[in-house]
Amino acid sequence: MASHILLINCPDQSGLVYKITSVLYKHALNIVRNGEFVDKNFNHFFMRTEFFGEVDEELLLQGLYEILPDGVEIKLTDQRKKDIVLLATKEHHCLSDLLIRHAFNELNANVLCVISNYNVLEELTQKFNIPFHCVSHEGLTREAHEAAVLKIIKQYNPEFLVLAKYMRVLSSGFVTAFPNRIVNIHHSFLPAFVGANPYAQAYARGVKIIGATAHFVNDQLDQGPIIAQSIIPVDHTHNAKEMTQAGRDVEKNVLAKSLKLVLNEQVFVSGNRTIILE
Amino acid sequence: MASHILLINCPDQSGLVYKITSVLYKHALNIVRNGEFVDKNFNHFFMRTEFFGEVDEELLLQGLYEILPDGVEIKLTDQRKKDIVLLATKEHHCLSDLLIRHAFNELNANVLCVISNYNVLEELTQKFNIPFHCVSHEGLTREAHEAAVLKIIKQYNPEFLVLAKYMRVLSSGFVTAFPNRIVNIHHSFLPAFVGANPYAQAYARGVKIIGATAHFVNDQLDQGPIIAQSIIPVDHTHNAKEMTQAGRDVEKNVLAKSLKLVLNEQVFVSGNRTIILE
Amino acid sequence: MASHILLINCPDQSGLVYKITSVLYKHALNIVRNGEFVDKNFNHFFMRTEFFGEVDEELLLQGLYEILPDGVEIKLTDQRKKDIVLLATKEHHCLSDLLIRHAFNELNANVLCVISNYNVLEELTQKFNIPFHCVSHEGLTREAHEAAVLKIIKQYNPEFLVLAKYMRVLSSGFVTAFPNRIVNIHHSFLPAFVGANPYAQAYARGVKIIGATAHFVNDQLDQGPIIAQSIIPVDHTHNAKEMTQAGRDVEKNVLAKSLKLVLNEQVFVSGNRTIILE
Amino acid sequence: MASHILLINCPDQSGLVYKITSVLYKHALNIVRNGEFVDKNFNHFFMRTEFFGEVDEELLLQGLYEILPDGVEIKLTDQRKKDIVLLATKEHHCLSDLLIRHAFNELNANVLCVISNYNVLEELTQKFNIPFHCVSHEGLTREAHEAAVLKIIKQYNPEFLVLAKYMRVLSSGFVTAFPNRIVNIHHSFLPAFVGANPYAQAYARGVKIIGATAHFVNDQLDQGPIIAQSIIPVDHTHNAKEMTQAGRDVEKNVLAKSLKLVLNEQVFVSGNRTIILE
Repeated sequence: MASHILLINCPDQSGLVYKITSVLYKHALNIVRNGEFVDKNFNHFFMRTEFFGEVDEELLLQGLYEILPDGVEIKLTDQRKKDIVLLATKEHHCLSDLLIRHAFNELNANVLCVISNYNVLEELTQKFNIPFHCVSHEGLTREAHEAAVLKIIKQYNPEFLVLAKYMRVLSSGFVTAFPNRIVNIHHSFLPAFVGANPYAQAYARGVKIIGATAHFVNDQLDQGPIIAQSIIPVDHTHNAKEMTQAGRDVEKNVLAKSLKLVLNEQVFVSGNRTIILE
Repeated sequence: MASHILLINCPDQSGLVYKITSVLYKHALNIVRNGEFVDKNFNHFFMRTEFFGEVDEELLLQGLYEILPDGVEIKLTDQRKKDIVLLATKEHHCLSDLLIRHAFNELNANVLCVISNYNVLEELTQKFNIPFHCVSHEGLTREAHEAAVLKIIKQYNPEFLVLAKYMRVLSSGFVTAFPNRIVNIHHSFLPAFVGANPYAQAYARGVKIIGATAHFVNDQLDQGPIIAQSIIPVDHTHNAKEMTQAGRDVEKNVLAKSLKLVLNEQVFVSGNRTIILE
Repeated sequence: MASHILLINCPDQSGLVYKITSVLYKHALNIVRNGEFVDKNFNHFFMRTEFFGEVDEELLLQGLYEILPDGVEIKLTDQRKKDIVLLATKEHHCLSDLLIRHAFNELNANVLCVISNYNVLEELTQKFNIPFHCVSHEGLTREAHEAAVLKIIKQYNPEFLVLAKYMRVLSSGFVTAFPNRIVNIHHSFLPAFVGANPYAQAYARGVKIIGATAHFVNDQLDQGPIIAQSIIPVDHTHNAKEMTQAGRDVEKNVLAKSLKLVLNEQVFVSGNRTIILE
Repeated sequence: MASHILLINCPDQSGLVYKITSVLYKHALNIVRNGEFVDKNFNHFFMRTEFFGEVDEELLLQGLYEILPDGVEIKLTDQRKKDIVLLATKEHHCLSDLLIRHAFNELNANVLCVISNYNVLEELTQKFNIPFHCVSHEGLTREAHEAAVLKIIKQYNPEFLVLAKYMRVLSSGFVTAFPNRIVNIHHSFLPAFVGANPYAQAYARGVKIIGATAHFVNDQLDQGPIIAQSIIPVDHTHNAKEMTQAGRDVEKNVLAKSLKLVLNEQVFVSGNRTIILE
């Protein structure tokens, strides 16, 4: 018997938990985990429910739509592995980490392929029997390069793209083709140090902590909804290069943590913010 | 219109969230925050609900008992300030912190008095216009000293006792008079370094982290249900005295954090563990 | 026999540790702690030495200047308490923390007085028998207000000013009168959220960590050399007000930590960065 | 021109830094990094110096022994890669992490081989072209199994052994053959939860933090000198299995961190404690 996941968000009103759980109860579905949040600033309700039982999807959704207010968004899904494509450039640490987790069945995903604008990580990827596509950006316009990347992505039809230190800025057109479905790791505690060379920026500013931020990508550079962040302390003995080395473990851990949340369907996006329910 | 808090725990069964929220819905009560947890190891259900609305307590409880399984425990309370008594010995940092928070209305409690086995902290306590009772243990048996302390406590009839670095072991008799109502701060990350002089033990063991643990007191030394823990890094430059100094901020922060949870009625005790719901 | 502290920074060259320690050895001074750092980016040497022994200051400094390169800066000081003045506005938590530490002799400083642009914290300050000066900014130009504040400060002749949540921007003129002698606590992990209402900015950006930064004040807003930073995790349940509350403990802890370093003469300023030696 | 590392420890006395640096100065060696620590509890001096220059090892050591007190220990080494052998059982995460770092030249070591009492990790190891030796303990006494393992180790003559989740207790005889040269990762914040199944112990105790400890192995179970420790928060939603999963990232990060310190010759062992110098 499979576990199902129900994600609901709608304008808040009285009795929503009762109404939703009553529908599940009538369908003889057994809730095993339930998380709700009411964002009072926006008067909006979010609920994530895991339940067991035999589901007639159509009837269940119909029952829910009947009792929920206009503007409701409902997603009925499950805990099966999601299909993902990884994009990388030259740095290996995030890609290595995801490939290892995937190889040992610790990532709730099927890694369909790796795409890179260099071939540096081809050997690594092939160790794990994952297809590797090198799409060099040399001599191409941004549009032409993205078109070539997109063509490969479309062959695989992934549910999520993961930018595992993919060091190219994506165009607005590319991003809007995957709304809230591209996860990026940025090597700073955003909003500090947007853009290129955040560790060089961090060194120049003399900070005592550095960090990393996993976020959904939208069409503004490093401005998308943040999923997870973490930091480590640094001191005057770290120059920009040493910060870069020290930051790698944080980057890979934060990216892995955020993917776990996303792949487990725990993340709602609300404007520029994420709501993460157990 | 006041906010109410409903705490329920019972053997798990299907439909509990639906059943409970249906009773609240029939009473026209508006849930603003809801947390549930099913402990699958023990097949037990925990729920904490904050709601607004006019409550007929008797009818509401009757309605809940009717639909909930045998063995259910229900607590209907609210967010009013709880009455507490603080016990301390000679070290000021936890007491100072609580008195300051109390003075600025940041502690969801009425501090009724401070009791100590020394008079070292009398001057501090009086700055904040809180009654101070010195009950020296000199020349008294443990029983006689505890009896004298208890006599004072009973005058004040507190809901919780807070051991803010009270350096005396409480007898089983004393503790059982306040089941899960005594909060202690222990200056180690339990279960490491039970008992006296944890920092001296930590130094001797050569640890690289030290910590503090806030827990409910039961009749086994430093074995009660843990509410909150935190740590800080140390290194070879810290001797036991320097660990003691470095640990103070952790101790006071952990005690304050645990009290916030306890006073806000977020903490369930289940055997030797706590379940903490938002 | 008192402990002395020697702070030296100069262009790096070979043999500096040997040369410096040889002078101390000839003066029969006994080093108990020694920290050095060579900033290779700027080819600059920093050294902090604690030593015991009877010192002829003039001869010692002469001996050091003779063997050290042009451009050397030498500071010979000791571990006596430094004189400080605290500035605050309406929020109590940083001030409370410092006053408590001062009262229990845990701050390596003499708090000479508290100055505020409101009288909200007068009662608190007076509990600890510290002079309180209210200098309202109402109806005054920035210049006139700062002149009034400066007049009071000059009476006390402090070595350091501590901005314990002093919510006024200081003019360039004010700041340059106390070069690297004003310590401020900013309620964000700088350089994120410069300026006003950082928690409101943090909420709007949807960050998953918030923090605080203690720094020396220079004439650019929130751009001075950072001494210490710390963070705590937050999530979607924190609105700006709850972030503000959660951030208080971080703010006071970071400010206290940075003051310990500054008052113990462990902090070098090098451009916009601090070098902190044990 | 290579970088050399000099490690000295001896009973403390006045002028040691001067005396040591004077010898280096006479040999025209250029110190680039220097760390000292005086353990006042034991009146013992520790110093680690990195320097550049052409070294006549014999003359340098002779010069140092002449001016240093009886009982001094001197180690003159360099930053070349150390030879190491990895031992594992069935869990991959620490081994994966080290193999990946090794493959990308981020581990200051030559991984000579992997030895395991199971063949589960053979495929992983072979991806990275590292010899894998399976030595099953089935049907063997502890002595016989250890003898078989030792025989393989001796072929490779490593400088350090790394127990990357090697789940067998080593005999005293085995351990004493590699004094302070075996690094183990234990999956708890020692001294909490010594021995088997620390996460099950942690769950049973209801702790709110779990951690990991990297330490040198001595002949008492989980009692050797601690090199590094780290923790992560957990809560009531984590059962023992979920703690185990959550703990993996901490384990691999702490092991990697401790190896970096050990392989970079930064760690002194003093009784049951480590002194770690920059």
